[in-house]
Amino acid sequence: MKVLVANLGSTSFKYRLFDLSSDVQLARGGIDRIGSAESSCQVEIGDYSDTATRHIPDHAAAVKICLEQLTDAEHGCLGAVSEVAVIGFKTVFAGRLSGVRVVNEELLAAMEELSDIAPAHNPPYVKAMRQLREACPEIPLVAALETGFHDTIPLANRSYAVPAAWRTDYQVQRWGFHGASHRYITTRIAEILGRDDLRVISCHLGGSNSLCAAKDGVSLANSLGMSPQSGLPHNNRVGDFDPFALPVLMRATGKSLAELLEDLANKSGLLGVSGLSGDVRDLEEAAAEGHAGAQLALDVFVAAIRQYVGAYLAVLGGADAIVFTGGIGENSQLIRQQVCDNMAWAGIELDTELNQQVDGETKISTAGSATEVWVLQTNEEIIVARQAAKAIS
Amino acid sequence: MKVLVANLGSTSFKYRLFDLSSDVQLARGGIDRIGSAESSCQVEIGDYSDTATRHIPDHAAAVKICLEQLTDAEHGCLGAVSEVAVIGFKTVFAGRLSGVRVVNEELLAAMEELSDIAPAHNPPYVKAMRQLREACPEIPLVAALETGFHDTIPLANRSYAVPAAWRTDYQVQRWGFHGASHRYITTRIAEILGRDDLRVISCHLGGSNSLCAAKDGVSLANSLGMSPQSGLPHNNRVGDFDPFALPVLMRATGKSLAELLEDLANKSGLLGVSGLSGDVRDLEEAAAEGHAGAQLALDVFVAAIRQYVGAYLAVLGGADAIVFTGGIGENSQLIRQQVCDNMAWAGIELDTELNQQVDGETKISTAGSATEVWVLQTNEEIIVARQAAKAIS
Repeated sequence: MKVLVANLGSTSFKYRLFDLSSDVQLARGGIDRIGSAESSCQVEIGDYSDTATRHIPDHAAAVKICLEQLTDAEHGCLGAVSEVAVIGFKTVFAGRLSGVRVVNEELLAAMEELSDIAPAHNPPYVKAMRQLREACPEIPLVAALETGFHDTIPLANRSYAVPAAWRTDYQVQRWGFHGASHRYITTRIAEILGRDDLRVISCHLGGSNSLCAAKDGVSLANSLGMSPQSGLPHNNRVGDFDPFALPVLMRATGKSLAELLEDLANKSGLLGVSGLSGDVRDLEEAAAEGHAGAQLALDVFVAAIRQYVGAYLAVLGGADAIVFTGGIGENSQLIRQQVCDNMAWAGIELDTELNQQVDGETKISTAGSATEVWVLQTNEEIIVARQAAKAIS
Repeated sequence: MKVLVANLGSTSFKYRLFDLSSDVQLARGGIDRIGSAESSCQVEIGDYSDTATRHIPDHAAAVKICLEQLTDAEHGCLGAVSEVAVIGFKTVFAGRLSGVRVVNEELLAAMEELSDIAPAHNPPYVKAMRQLREACPEIPLVAALETGFHDTIPLANRSYAVPAAWRTDYQVQRWGFHGASHRYITTRIAEILGRDDLRVISCHLGGSNSLCAAKDGVSLANSLGMSPQSGLPHNNRVGDFDPFALPVLMRATGKSLAELLEDLANKSGLLGVSGLSGDVRDLEEAAAEGHAGAQLALDVFVAAIRQYVGAYLAVLGGADAIVFTGGIGENSQLIRQQVCDNMAWAGIELDTELNQQVDGETKISTAGSATEVWVLQTNEEIIVARQAAKAIS
């Protein structure tokens, strides 16, 4: 079965095409600046790759281009569009409508209603999925909600200490996100270590960041709470924050609640603390050159990760494995080093040399470390592809 | 030197009188229902104790009664009011005006301006201290701010991931509270263990709750952040919460931001989750009888404490001692047991029997536990008395 997996930004569309019968990725591509005069349209199919500049008015048009690329007579890998059995979406949030779901009006309405929980994510997905249902009615669309992997989080970890009705009636609870990535990591580390009964701390560190405590392949806690703005600091989103600061800020700045939440969702995180950039690569470079804001942003980031690692060790009763993944987790030896520094009390000991020589799936802890530390390359798309295939079968 | 320490509620006044030359508590007393027709006025001086019913219109009148009790010809312990060298207040929050300070208009204005950060605490203190300055101009008043012990928290743990100016210009940062209690506990455990170079997790669990990570007697982190509503769940205050839930709740309930913050400060915490009570004694009793809400409230509370213990183990690089104190910490063997359960991975092992036989200062960990676990009786008042005495000398 051939499954297309779509990853949407407000003005971007990235895709991968999988043949699930052989677990092979057939193609990948991406289109940016959707809606502007000139979009760059990239595609890779086997050894063939191409970048063209086109005008792409909306996400539906982007999918049309994608399907043209895939069925191209010379370079394509599909005989006909009808070979695509389903399009799977790594969808962020529909509250109680979690798990994996065929896209329908009920789901789209729920996503729309909860847009202010995921302001950067929900609106483009809803818009694009609506366009696609009209443009390609013959292909079923499936949403794999990022909250799905966390449906197992027990109430003790899921509940804020708020009036009970806020959780039951208004969906105010710790949902958890990044489900596809944490599902992939916990599954993959179990394969590598040849054991299902593992206590794993999965550290997804990229543009947005979260830690997950998983036992026996089941999520028990995630640092992302009610919204994808919570938990660890993100590139430009705040992470954990005290709402009682809001009236102080409203008085001091003259801004409305909506404006302050926008600042917390767009001008905070590593970008806000550093005043420079939300990209850890930029921050490491600037900090090395003495930029105090960049150094503080890195320090705040590492301190938060360490505290969540400690918290999740307590949730799990110690860990068999800690896994780093995502753009930062896979590539920043500095962040990995500082997170694992002075953790011998918990049986965690990094091998400094191995940490500097990561190449593909790499174990970076010492032979004597009770907890194994790994770097793995996450693959959210294969998870979504499998879930989408299962949903329509 | 004789020092009076005052502990104020909105309609209550409790005091203790210390003779610091011999570190002896000379008297204690309390007046409740201030402003109502009948207040109960209690006093204990040596073996003498008395309870009288009087009309006490305001906090200034309450202090007058207190001074009358202390200078009573028959039962008092003071020859004259002038023997009171200073009145010390366990004051909550004045933002940047932290530490220990003689009460003046600048301090009172700062406390007033930041009232919405500590809505249950700042208003009664400001009102009472204003009244007292008029009523007893001859006695200096000193405020020992609860944030003072936490002035050493490094920026990495202190900073929210918000735009830098919010911290520097608008005082939006993790201040930490319960300073007098955590200072007492870290000092006392160092005396008991005969070492100053300790890594201590101080667990103050009472009506309001916080954990503190202290190294070498210095606070490195506190679970209370910008406001005393954050961190662990409290009796009726929320603890950590995601501000992005606020617009959802505003739409769903029709309430204003101010009304929701009031709910978070008064109807949340253990009370909100259980729907029954904010008192752990009530919850333990109800849970034992099968009350699901009470059980969930206890589970949420324990889960939060455990996660902060783990986080602070990571801050400290392991702990030499974990100390329970406060009404819950000193009296609930169940909470202590569940917090320390399955922590052997971190070298923490509770002795179940010792935990059930706490009497005064008691070690409750096993002989083999790498981290010692203790129950100590906090004494915030003696800390405030010493700080007040030092401030005027």
